Amino acid sequence: MTVKLYLAGPEVFLPNARDVMEAKAALTRRYGFEPICPGDISIEPAPTLHEFGLKISAVDEDMMNAADGVIANLTPFRGIAADPGTAFELGYMCAQGKQVAAYTNVLDNHYERTAGFYDGQVVKGEDGYKRGPDGLSLEDFDMIDNLMLHGGVERRGGPIFAHAAAPDALYTDLTAFEKCLIFLSKRT
Amino acid sequence: MTVKLYLAGPEVFLPNARDVMEAKAALTRRYGFEPICPGDISIEPAPTLHEFGLKISAVDEDMMNAADGVIANLTPFRGIAADPGTAFELGYMCAQGKQVAAYTNVLDNHYERTAGFYDGQVVKGEDGYKRGPDGLSLEDFDMIDNLMLHGGVERRGGPIFAHAAAPDALYTDLTAFEKCLIFLSKRT
Repeated sequence: MTVKLYLAGPEVFLPNARDVMEAKAALTRRYGFEPICPGDISIEPAPTLHEFGLKISAVDEDMMNAADGVIANLTPFRGIAADPGTAFELGYMCAQGKQVAAYTNVLDNHYERTAGFYDGQVVKGEDGYKRGPDGLSLEDFDMIDNLMLHGGVERRGGPIFAHAAAPDALYTDLTAFEKCLIFLSKRT
Repeated sequence: MTVKLYLAGPEVFLPNARDVMEAKAALTRRYGFEPICPGDISIEPAPTLHEFGLKISAVDEDMMNAADGVIANLTPFRGIAADPGTAFELGYMCAQGKQVAAYTNVLDNHYERTAGFYDGQVVKGEDGYKRGPDGLSLEDFDMIDNLMLHGGVERRGGPIFAHAAAPDALYTDLTAFEKCLIFLSKRT
């Protein structure tokens, strides 16, 4: 049976979302997997935008339930952290004991990005925690995002790749995505 | 058997994290539930920060596995979206078919916050999508965060409450948290 991989990430918000998802799907097939892409199928209209959103949620969960694994694009999205929808989906797949993989198209790790959020104004307090001017502590674990995401993948033996994409290819560069596919194809 | 609720949220990063978590735990007990709080137990030291982070990830997942449900604090954290760790945890609990509830301490919904991220520079294109100057589309589903998070809770019949907390009580105001407890206690 061909292993089905759910392709999670913020590419669905791109103007050329379909092209990018098709490129990811083609690459996924090249490594012997069957791609399952959110936004791939047409969702029936609903009476309200809210109900339409709920339908997408249901369809995407069904896709994850049908998948054997996920490759999550954790490239920071509208801020310093991964797209929360993708974070949700990675947690969803970890809980199901499926194959998990993650990548990011920036090299700065979670700590470096959070320190950047505070313009470097980070101080180590008497409690041993590094904190920003707002008092909130920073995770400094050499991970690509919050420890639940990175840890969830690494503890399951999943690959995590970081690649320095060009700014204009932040969500379209598939170098790290392909590395995940290579890793998974060698293991399967 | 007392229903065990995992209390997910970015409070763990507060300077007074322990106090806030204890207040949440006390309130949880008052409604007849047993609270399970991340960061509640001491984690053994590890050779490296990275390995320490992995240990926390393992402990938190074990706590979720032991819990019957989650109340997720989706109040925006260091940006316009929920803490990605909390998003991961909500997805994790949704996948396990556990009870799920969510709240936020801001009234602006996901769309309004994203439009704010773009300083209101949002244009509806020919494809029907609203997009920011970077071309990325905005979800406009009257939801408190990305549709996977909001939809995951609502579709399972879980409560979602939004409350306008004072800016200095953004992560400590328990009004909406208590509303989730009241809702769950009436259903259990």
